[in-house]
Amino acid sequence: MDDLILHEDPRSGNCYKIRLTAALLGLPLERKEYDILTGETRTPGFLANVNSNGRIPVLQIGDRLLPESNAACFYLGEGTELIPGDCFERADMLRWMFFEQYNHEPNIATLRFWLAYIGEAHLTDQQRAQIPAKRIAGQDALALMDRHLSGRAWFVGEACTLADISLYAYTHVAEAGGLRLRDHRYVCAWLDRVAALPGYVPMD
Amino acid sequence: MDDLILHEDPRSGNCYKIRLTAALLGLPLERKEYDILTGETRTPGFLANVNSNGRIPVLQIGDRLLPESNAACFYLGEGTELIPGDCFERADMLRWMFFEQYNHEPNIATLRFWLAYIGEAHLTDQQRAQIPAKRIAGQDALALMDRHLSGRAWFVGEACTLADISLYAYTHVAEAGGLRLRDHRYVCAWLDRVAALPGYVPMD
Repeated sequence: MDDLILHEDPRSGNCYKIRLTAALLGLPLERKEYDILTGETRTPGFLANVNSNGRIPVLQIGDRLLPESNAACFYLGEGTELIPGDCFERADMLRWMFFEQYNHEPNIATLRFWLAYIGEAHLTDQQRAQIPAKRIAGQDALALMDRHLSGRAWFVGEACTLADISLYAYTHVAEAGGLRLRDHRYVCAWLDRVAALPGYVPMD
Repeated sequence: MDDLILHEDPRSGNCYKIRLTAALLGLPLERKEYDILTGETRTPGFLANVNSNGRIPVLQIGDRLLPESNAACFYLGEGTELIPGDCFERADMLRWMFFEQYNHEPNIATLRFWLAYIGEAHLTDQQRAQIPAKRIAGQDALALMDRHLSGRAWFVGEACTLADISLYAYTHVAEAGGLRLRDHRYVCAWLDRVAALPGYVPMD
């Protein structure tokens, strides 16, 4: 495999997904850090040379660049046990990864970013006005995950897949955004299960 | 293949993605319609039997249910020319599909839904306050697509993939949400290219 370089901010759960996937698979990953709070991913150089969307993570594979955290995890997971061999289960894994980016991350990760990194006092009025709705949507996402996990150990099939890694990243730090994890006991048990995987690495 | 039933609202671009994928592949698809405006996807029956997330589309494959439009397209596209055989290109296709759900759909599709279906007069104050930001983010998404398409015919590789189908669905009706397509000439040429594909079906 070509050399792998992760362009990242270590505080980002989206970047952590890729580090965790690589760690579980024993793949070496060079890390190149940017500070999103000081705009290091919006500079002309970053936009021209790394990602025109101004976002991290970007996984660099040799000289090719791959933005979008879940796409990067899919690339690393190809041909491994982290992606199911069954066609329906593979699509069902992607179903949870799209759920993560649509229903989970924009609420749970955004609340954490706003409250734990920007700080409530520095939010715009429009951001502050969105907090109650994001809190409800975040709790709804956790509740849906909890119901799904009530009868099973992993999101898809009988073992850990990229769906679990993708959802784990921002779920395990959801309380930094003011959400309550202890209301969701199956989610809590599943978080422990992920953290016990051989090769697991914590978020920085 | 098992019988395929699409649980959908025909006005939804997310549902149309699946219909267009099936049509391009010549796959028969039974359609079961719900009206999202009257809450038909939030009934106890729908939540218990179709999708606990209260959303369409859901692709039913025999007795198995698959929510999330892009995951359903991936299921239908497995083993066909709509998914690249190359590992990097396959991940790059998913990269654009995740971009679609994160940067494109929440702005471009939401503006269309709010303005063309709910109507500006019936929006909440909080929804109305988000229109300017969603308009800027939607134009940014279209501009990024335009730059990418300036030197190429399709989003990934040399032929139409699921990335094109996914992005086509809400792009070709973006003007219903007040966005300007004619500012993006490479996008316009690409829309024509998709509409000329053998087997293409229009949105209802």
